[in-house]
Formats: sequence, structure tokens, C-alpha cells
Amino acid sequence: MTAFADLMAFQRETEALAQIAGRLGWDQETMMPEGAAEQRGEEMAAIEGVLHSRRTDPRVGDWLASAKATDAAGARALDLIGRSYHRNVAVPGRLAAEIARVTSVAQGIWAEARAKDDVAHFLPVFEKVVALMREKGQALAEAGFGGGDVYDALLDDYEPGATAATIGAMFGRMRPRLVALREKVLGAAGHPAPVKGTFAKEGQLALARELATAFGYDWNRGRLDLAVHPFSSGSGNDARITTRVVEADPFNCLYSTIHEVGHACYELAIDPDHLFTPLGAGVSMGVHESQSRIYENQLGRSRAFTGWLHGRMRDTFGDFGVATAEEFYRSVNRVQSGYIRTEADEVHYNLHIMMRFDLERQVMAGVLEVADLEAAWNARFAEDFGVKVDRPANGVLQDVHWSVGLFGYFPTYTLGNVYAGCLMKALRADLPDIDADLARGDARPATDWLAAKVQRFGGLYRPAEVIERACGFAPSEAPLLDYLDAKFGDLYGL
Amino acid sequence: MTAFADLMAFQRETEALAQIAGRLGWDQETMMPEGAAEQRGEEMAAIEGVLHSRRTDPRVGDWLASAKATDAAGARALDLIGRSYHRNVAVPGRLAAEIARVTSVAQGIWAEARAKDDVAHFLPVFEKVVALMREKGQALAEAGFGGGDVYDALLDDYEPGATAATIGAMFGRMRPRLVALREKVLGAAGHPAPVKGTFAKEGQLALARELATAFGYDWNRGRLDLAVHPFSSGSGNDARITTRVVEADPFNCLYSTIHEVGHACYELAIDPDHLFTPLGAGVSMGVHESQSRIYENQLGRSRAFTGWLHGRMRDTFGDFGVATAEEFYRSVNRVQSGYIRTEADEVHYNLHIMMRFDLERQVMAGVLEVADLEAAWNARFAEDFGVKVDRPANGVLQDVHWSVGLFGYFPTYTLGNVYAGCLMKALRADLPDIDADLARGDARPATDWLAAKVQRFGGLYRPAEVIERACGFAPSEAPLLDYLDAKFGDLYGL
Repeated sequence: MTAFADLMAFQRETEALAQIAGRLGWDQETMMPEGAAEQRGEEMAAIEGVLHSRRTDPRVGDWLASAKATDAAGARALDLIGRSYHRNVAVPGRLAAEIARVTSVAQGIWAEARAKDDVAHFLPVFEKVVALMREKGQALAEAGFGGGDVYDALLDDYEPGATAATIGAMFGRMRPRLVALREKVLGAAGHPAPVKGTFAKEGQLALARELATAFGYDWNRGRLDLAVHPFSSGSGNDARITTRVVEADPFNCLYSTIHEVGHACYELAIDPDHLFTPLGAGVSMGVHESQSRIYENQLGRSRAFTGWLHGRMRDTFGDFGVATAEEFYRSVNRVQSGYIRTEADEVHYNLHIMMRFDLERQVMAGVLEVADLEAAWNARFAEDFGVKVDRPANGVLQDVHWSVGLFGYFPTYTLGNVYAGCLMKALRADLPDIDADLARGDARPATDWLAAKVQRFGGLYRPAEVIERACGFAPSEAPLLDYLDAKFGDLYGL
Repeated sequence: MTAFADLMAFQRETEALAQIAGRLGWDQETMMPEGAAEQRGEEMAAIEGVLHSRRTDPRVGDWLASAKATDAAGARALDLIGRSYHRNVAVPGRLAAEIARVTSVAQGIWAEARAKDDVAHFLPVFEKVVALMREKGQALAEAGFGGGDVYDALLDDYEPGATAATIGAMFGRMRPRLVALREKVLGAAGHPAPVKGTFAKEGQLALARELATAFGYDWNRGRLDLAVHPFSSGSGNDARITTRVVEADPFNCLYSTIHEVGHACYELAIDPDHLFTPLGAGVSMGVHESQSRIYENQLGRSRAFTGWLHGRMRDTFGDFGVATAEEFYRSVNRVQSGYIRTEADEVHYNLHIMMRFDLERQVMAGVLEVADLEAAWNARFAEDFGVKVDRPANGVLQDVHWSVGLFGYFPTYTLGNVYAGCLMKALRADLPDIDADLARGDARPATDWLAAKVQRFGGLYRPAEVIERACGFAPSEAPLLDYLDAKFGDLYGL
């Protein structure tokens, strides 16, 4: 065998083992009996240890030095394996193990602190997490990742090629328009009423399944289960989704299902030739999020689709107090200032992200101390949202991300929204009848378009490249902002 | 660290990875979407590859050569790791891989052949399986396992220390008494009626859960799901069970649940200090089966327990045509000649096993050709059961075991029954009021006794040793045969 073939065979096994680790994570959140938690921690550590030693195996370095690809997919696979190898060897084993250990403890302490609204309880372990992540970012920066910048070196893990400078510049252009839209909407005369009532679990789950089907989810290669925090999991021919049910808020279940279907459909649509290669998964967090967001928002919260959903809601739950499709559309898209990012509407969502992005950059750069983070959060929130944070669980303690060391992750959510805006513009140009399809409850023409234009390539192209190829224009924030202005201008009669 | 500590740390990770492989197997039979089957095959091969290379890692050999244990548990752990290591290195990697590949294909072909009643369809691949298993047995025998005997070397995988000679001698003593009992029972004047009707799935599953609780199953460390063929899976703090529902036959679900609870309780009761060591799982198939069988039969099919179950059946399903507890007890224990081992009553079950034991020894010894196995099966069945096999699915094709290379496994089922007979004798002596407990639907005094006397030791003692320590006498077939004679003599008024 050649070095290339040897490397790809080795990588294939590594990818298969990584799938197993993912499946174990799924089990932990959906099926695992409670009493197994501690044991599972040791099992996860064992498989992560195997993966780490394979990803830093010196043979990979040797193979990379002499392997030659014969086509573009092979060349891209070598790039991605090389990237992973060099990132992994750049972080000392001692540091990687310490990060795994400390973040696992920190996540538990964060959950306690959030439950008790006690920031001080979280700060000591969070200091350690921040110090370790700075050290990791430093090690990666020294190895040349992120152009030598600590934050960019971390960001590069989630959105290869992105930098804080370009993202920051884009966010800077977006923020004034979002703030202006927010103010106009909140100041509008008529506000939609929220949906009220109790919506039985069985009905919500039946409708969630129907929605997944409407968006083309392949039940032969996936399944839907309940989880505390909805997520999707798995690649290739086994991409599962989860949802949760809040009986007072059916949109929680229904729209989180559509969101996770977007993630899962991406994985399921990837060219089967890429299975168990570095090209066999979504290419970045931003592109992944663009799929979940366009399914959930641009398609799922459109007037056309909610018109159909309104009828299915009435079929399922009877008269639930929302008489017309238009009234339902307005309820689904109700804009409201709130503390919680995950509950935010399309107008507010990106403002939540921008705030986190600015704060986490300052923390990583060492210009904002961990002890001062809460005050900085509250000041910024008052500035952007015009509301005083009432308690830490609604403020700096609300997200799990930082507790587990995810610095550089947040901006990919807004990047996903931006990409979704671009894709929707191109999709509408290619599929002029899409609203008629959505109004019949059939989103598949749209999702088939996404599968053909974005999803099937997996990791073949770089993140911004796959979006540009799909759209025929370079991605920018403009289509998203235009879409939001038009949609909410219309909805609120601005 | 010392060689002992190094070895145990390495082993700990291996055990954790083995748990993961087991969990993946559970997922495959309960949760996995159908379309993921092929991908899962590659994932399983990857983790099995990791396990195989750890189990044959030359460092294990080095550590074993110099490791010193400081207590009995440590010494036993070294024995078990050494046993596993030497068995694994005795089988050439090429042969192990070929067995994995061929048996995986053979299982699929066997399922097709059984569905079509087409023995000829199965024979070509089965020839290969048999040749490979002979080769494996030969390699193990040459390495000194099974005292140099091919069949014993394979049997040793499932029941360490057992030999075909001693098992054959015991079976020889058992068979005349079982045949005599069978003839008397079948010739008896009054036969119990089978239970008839349709028993709703929900009711069966609710009752199955209640039965698991009655036998002390720890729901905080386990769960119950549906599977085509019921099984249990996992060790330590995560031992899951499965069952199936046949609406015309509630005993299928209820008694397979109790059976699997027996297996799972064994794993859950093992001393937590043994977790992730070679002592952290049931010591042999025979001892494992003794637990599932005593739960299912000696306890679960007792007059006392079925008296309680009769009431719960009436509570759950209403009047189902069996008026008295005594009538119900007779229905549950109805003796009937039948083709299928897994559906056999306590009188017939061991006759099914003895037949397979004799045939598989002849196949492994090369004195019975694969092409002649069906004829040999049918002749022996007519002799032992007085019935002509009507079709291969009811005959030589009924069990999956041989298709996946499980030669030497069948006798452990009867060994389990024999051990269960011994344990029940000792248990009755220690717990004179057990029938009163069972009559209240509480099997926990019995299962607590088993946990304390057998289960908690895990792999600490050798199989026959743990039974002898629990019983206070050397295990023999006599208690089982006495129990069967008494129970069915009474039931059939012999």
C-alpha cells in the first residue's frame, strides 16, 4: 500500500471509533440509567484516550509527510487529517487531559451555580477553565493556528479559516441595523398574542414526527427521542435527533425538532463515498448551523409553512385559541425582549451572540478578568436589550458553553444565520414556487435543494466556499438583514 | 508503578472499552435505525480491532511475567488476564479476523435459510464456519487449552475448567431420569389447558416491569426495552434487559423478563470494587445461566409465586379464563413435546441441550460431516422426543449458535439448570419461609440470598467453586432431578 492508502485506512478506523464515541454521548443523554453516570465517565475517557492517541499517532505524521493524493477529495482529506493531527500534537497531552478533567467537573459546578444563582460558587473552577483554555489557545497559536492569535486559534476549531477580525467587522455592520429593527418592532402599535393553553405531550410528539417527515428526515436512518436539551447526533446512515416537550409551549418541541432535523439532514445527505473519511461530516459549526437555522426559521417560520402548521395544530389539539393562519404566523414570530438566548426570536438572537463574542474575546485576551465578567455582562445587556438582568441564571450563568471551555464557539451561531440568509436568497431564486410547496406542508423541494447545493459535499469544500458555490455570490450579512427587515417590517406593519 | 499496577491500569481501560462494545451491541438490537446496519458493522469491527490489539498487546505478556499480586483478588485477576491473553495470542490474527468476517455473513445466510426452510442454502457457509472453528479449537488445544482437546478448548471459553468428559458423564446420568419423567408426565391422565386469549401489549409490559421489581431489579441502574430476541447487556452500574411481546402468549414476555432480570441482577450485584477488572462480570456462562434459570423457573414458576402472579394477571387483563391459582400454576408449567428449545418446559429443556451437545462434539471431532448433520439431528430428535421433525426451521436450523461459531456453548445451559437446582436446595434450607414471601409477590429474600452467596463475587472464584461455596456441597445433577421429579410428579399426580 502507499502512504496515502495506509493513512486513509487508519483514518477510517479512527472515524468509526469517533462515531462510537458520539453514539455513547447520545445514549448518555437519552437512554442511560441515572446510576450509570460515573461508570460512563470512565468509559468515555477510555474511548477518548484511544481517539487521542490515534489522532497524535506518529505514524500519521510520517504518512502525511509522504502521502500523495490523486484527486481533489483526496487532497482535501489530507488537508483535514493534517489539520487535525497538527492541532492535536500542538496541545501537550498533559494539558489535553487536564482540560478534559477540569471541564467535566466545571460543568457540574456550573449547573449547581445556575440552579442556586450563585456566581461565586462557579468562579474558582471557571478561573481554571479560562486559564487552561488560554494555555491551549497559546499552544495552538504558537503552532501557527489562527495566524498566531489565541482567540482565533480556538475559533479555528469550530469555523476553520474564520477570524475574530472579519467576524467582528461583520458583527459591527450588523448590530446597528438589528438594534434599529428591534426598536421599531418593540415600539410598534400592535403586538401578537402568545399562544396559551396546555398541549398534550403525545400530540406534540406526533406533530414533531410529522414535521420531521415534512422536512424530508429519513426515518430509516434516524430516530427521535426525548432529551433535556435537544441535540442531534451521528453521521452517515445513523443521524438521530432529540426534542423536549413543554406542555405550555408547543413551539419549543416543534421548532427544536425542525432545527435538529436540519442538522441531521445535513449529515444524512453527505455523499456516501465520504463515509468514514474526514469529508464525511458537516464542514464547520457555522455551515451546520446554517442548515438547522434555515430549516427552523426561513422555512419553518415562514408565512407559507406556518399556514399549513396552523391547520395541523388545530387537527391535533382542537381549537387552541388562535383562529386564523395569519394570527398564528404572528404568534410564531412574536418578538419579545428576553434574557435567554435559546428562547430568543430572530430579531434578538444575534444580539445575544454579539455580546458573548465580545465578552469572550476580552476574557481570552486577558483584558477582562473572570471576576469582572458578571458586571460586564449585565452592563452590556442593559445597553443592548434595555433591561436589567434580574438574576445570574438569566445572565452570565445561562449558557453551558464557557463552563466546558467552548471559547470561539458562539460566533458560529450568527455565522450560521448569515449563511442561512444567503442560502434562502439563492433558494428563492432557484425555486420560485417554494411558498406553494411550504403551504402544502412540503418542505422537501427546499431541503432537496440544500442537499444538492450544500449538504452532499460534506467536508469537501471550505466553509465559506461551499456557501459561495451554492449561492453563486460571496456570503455576506446583507441577505439576512434584508430578510429580517422585510419579514418583521411586514409582520409589525412598520 | 509496579508491573501489577501498570497491568491493572491497562486492563481497566480495556474493560471500559469492552463495555462500550457491549453497549453498541445493545443499541443495535434495540434502538439502531435499520438503515445503519452496514455502517454499524464497520464501527463494531473498529472497536473489536482495538480490543483485540489490547488483549494481545506484548506489554500484557511482559507485565504478566513480572506482576505480583498481594491478595487473592489480585491473584485471580492475574489468572484471568493471563488466560485471556494466552487464549487470544494462541489464535492467529488472520484466523480471528476470518472468523469474525465469515460468521457475520453466515448469520445472515442462516436467517435466510431458516426463513426458507432451506438447509442447502446454509451448508456452504456453514462448512466454512465449522472448518474455521475446528482450526481455532486446534490452535487453542495446541496452546494447552482444554487439555489439548479441540472441543474442550472451545468449551473452555464459556465454562472455564469444564470438559466434555465430565459434562458428558453427567448428562449420561441425567438422561434416563429425564426420559422416564417425560414419559410418565406425557402419559398422565389429566393435562393442564394452555392459557388462551389476547393479552394487550401495554398490560404485558406493565406486568413485566412489576415482575422485574418483584425480583429486585434496580431500575436506577438498568432499563427494559423491546428486542426481537430478549437478552441482557452490560455490567457494573448499567445492566439492561430486553423482552418481547406475543399477544397470544403472555408467558413469553413475562418469563423472558424474569430470565433476563436474573442475568442483569447478577451483574448489578457484583462487588463494586471489581468494576472494570476481570472480576467485574459473571464468572461463566453456566453460572450466569444458573441465575437466570433459578429466577425464571425454581422461583418464578413456583406454586407460591404463580399464585401471586395469577392475581396480578387478573388485575391486569380481567378474567382470562383461568379461574384458580392452582389451574394457573398448572398452565404455567404445562409439559408438552415440541420442536423448539427456547419454548421447551423444564422437563424437556435439557433433552434439547444434550442432543445438541452430542451432535456438536461429533461435528468438531470430524466424525459427523456438516452435510450429514440434518439427518443426524432428525434421527436423534425422533429417538428422544418421539416426534418426526416437520421442517428444518423446527429442526437443525432453529438456533443461531452454530452459525456464529458457538461450539461448546450449548452445554452451559444445562449446567446452569444443574447449578440452579443445587442453589435452590441450599436456598430453601437457609430461607424456610421463602414460599410465603413468593406468595406475596416478593422474590427479594431469595434474590438477596443469591446476591450474597453467588453474585457479589463476580469472577473471584472459579465457576464450580462459587456454587460449592454458596451451597455448602459439591454441585451435582441430583438436586435438579429431585426437584423436577417432585414438582412434576405432584403437578401431574404421578
